[in-house]
Amino acid sequence: MFLSGVRLTTATTTSRISYSHLLNRGCSLSGSYQQFPNLSISKSILSSSINSQIQQQRYFSSNKNSNSSSSSFNIRPRNRPIDIEHKMNEFNSDKIYKFAGIQLLVGEDKNQNIEAARKAIEEAASNGANIICLPECFNCPYSTSVFNEYAEKFGGPTTTMLADAAKRLKIWLIGGSIPERGDDGKIYNCSFIFNPSGELVGKHRKIHLFDINVPGKITFRESEILSPGETPTIIELGDGVRLGVGICYDIRFPELAMLYAKEGCQILVYPGAFNMTTGPAHWELLQRGRAVDNQVYVAAVSPARNPKSTYTAWGHSTVVSPWGDIVSTTEHDPTIIYANIELAKVKEMRTNIPVYQQKKLTTTFKI
Amino acid sequence: MFLSGVRLTTATTTSRISYSHLLNRGCSLSGSYQQFPNLSISKSILSSSINSQIQQQRYFSSNKNSNSSSSSFNIRPRNRPIDIEHKMNEFNSDKIYKFAGIQLLVGEDKNQNIEAARKAIEEAASNGANIICLPECFNCPYSTSVFNEYAEKFGGPTTTMLADAAKRLKIWLIGGSIPERGDDGKIYNCSFIFNPSGELVGKHRKIHLFDINVPGKITFRESEILSPGETPTIIELGDGVRLGVGICYDIRFPELAMLYAKEGCQILVYPGAFNMTTGPAHWELLQRGRAVDNQVYVAAVSPARNPKSTYTAWGHSTVVSPWGDIVSTTEHDPTIIYANIELAKVKEMRTNIPVYQQKKLTTTFKI
Repeated sequence: MFLSGVRLTTATTTSRISYSHLLNRGCSLSGSYQQFPNLSISKSILSSSINSQIQQQRYFSSNKNSNSSSSSFNIRPRNRPIDIEHKMNEFNSDKIYKFAGIQLLVGEDKNQNIEAARKAIEEAASNGANIICLPECFNCPYSTSVFNEYAEKFGGPTTTMLADAAKRLKIWLIGGSIPERGDDGKIYNCSFIFNPSGELVGKHRKIHLFDINVPGKITFRESEILSPGETPTIIELGDGVRLGVGICYDIRFPELAMLYAKEGCQILVYPGAFNMTTGPAHWELLQRGRAVDNQVYVAAVSPARNPKSTYTAWGHSTVVSPWGDIVSTTEHDPTIIYANIELAKVKEMRTNIPVYQQKKLTTTFKI
Repeated sequence: MFLSGVRLTTATTTSRISYSHLLNRGCSLSGSYQQFPNLSISKSILSSSINSQIQQQRYFSSNKNSNSSSSSFNIRPRNRPIDIEHKMNEFNSDKIYKFAGIQLLVGEDKNQNIEAARKAIEEAASNGANIICLPECFNCPYSTSVFNEYAEKFGGPTTTMLADAAKRLKIWLIGGSIPERGDDGKIYNCSFIFNPSGELVGKHRKIHLFDINVPGKITFRESEILSPGETPTIIELGDGVRLGVGICYDIRFPELAMLYAKEGCQILVYPGAFNMTTGPAHWELLQRGRAVDNQVYVAAVSPARNPKSTYTAWGHSTVVSPWGDIVSTTEHDPTIIYANIELAKVKEMRTNIPVYQQKKLTTTFKI
């Protein structure tokens, strides 16, 4: 079975084989997994000369309840060449991308949501955007009570539309996020990412689930229904340009952005839906902080505010430059924001204030 | 020889024996170094059950030029018990401190600078402040060309004034920074910190030297004359309350603040002197970012702007709450800012949005 515009072989395989499963097989890109030419985090990990299972440990802590805290030290990679300066400066700084963030009004009708997304993607592309991002939960109200009902596997109507649009419009498409029904039966808050050929080149399952309780203001527990992702997601755009993906609450964790920058990303994209408490307090601050600390462009794309929804999104989709300037932003109504992503500005800031070459501390978390 | 108000035995020993020397001797607090009862980073490190030299490696990367990247893995501690939740919540959240940040006008006359600082400290204490912080380079113009001329050892006129003021006024005193002439002959940008008994309880040598070049705007190279510090500095205020110290450019490195939070700090203090380029762009942003990411109070204390100086300080001394709110700030004229540091707000935010318990990624730098 082939879906229009989708390389289903790749896609289906991707949805069936989890990243960790791939990684645990110790594959290399020169081996049997070349059918994932653009599945970039896998590429990044698999192309390393070291055992991939060991490499995976670099990203993730050992289970803090497993009484195996020493093991994460024992199995760390040895003699792994790291040259941050080289990696971080090895990109074509003449490149300019036109980014579009679609602040979509999301309702209860899934088909209508998909159709509205399709139309907005077409509009953004017609205006010259070549990287387009949808908001978190763009086919589904943001509510734990409905994630199960709206969830779909890769190859369902939502991802089919995305793959088709990406191919037809020749755009990089970060599909915001949708509730994904995994082959393991679990539900993830997942962003499917497509290249201009309509190929799935990454899927980011939200790593840090939104479990907060600000009494009298906002209480939400994604973990009631969702399972967390386990893998940072890096998309290779070509010419050494890399884009890292996080979803909403992931932006609260500096180490994800730091990891992306260290791995050579110049652009971070966070589909997200902050609320009326954390939105005005932290939405823009976190974006500007990640941008300046890591000298990257940061784009965060929210749903529009829907007065009928139980969860009131803050809106204010925004793009921030590496210097921390707001390149583009908006209020809470449905709209599309545009921003030029000028890689020269990344190079300039990294040259002028070379913090990654000046870092002296090693810090780890959950060791 | 005894200086008024200073436990010179402790002080002189501290200035003669570097921390790393202490650490390399594998001492424990129950051993011969109990004369440093409040030298908190040492206490924190030395009280660990593991070999202190190994522990030190936790903080610092191996030399990237030494071709020994594997060694930092081999000598990492094993079976070190870490319970972030326990440590981070183990403080008296009823405590309220009154913080004062002295935005001092610094001129070329060292004695006048010291005297102006003394008067301002007395004024702040008379207004009820019990944690008082001076700005970066408060006895010396901020210029690499004069650091050598103004540099002094511990026990010189500046630190003698500080020790005396802390004891007499019964305050915690973070002595901004001064050019310190080390016993190794090197010059450091160093903050001497005193407890309300006038005892030296820490000295923070600026870890990340300010070497930046924003063409046409600001070029500065501290490393022309200064040597970098090597040790994070944590001050135990009692009741489980901990204060971490950084100097100016140190604030650009998220991992220092993350390390402090993980080690139980609720308050971070950065004497600093941002300039007219990076000041308006990043001074407040970095403070608010560190505060929200790590759920700590952040205080940053600048010199006042002196139109006669070659380096134009941004001013804008500021205190930020863990929620990212500006508790207190000012413009660039000489003044003292005050802020209540309410530990209940740290506890509240860490309870409501428990990011440190939710962290999943391990990331390292300069490995």
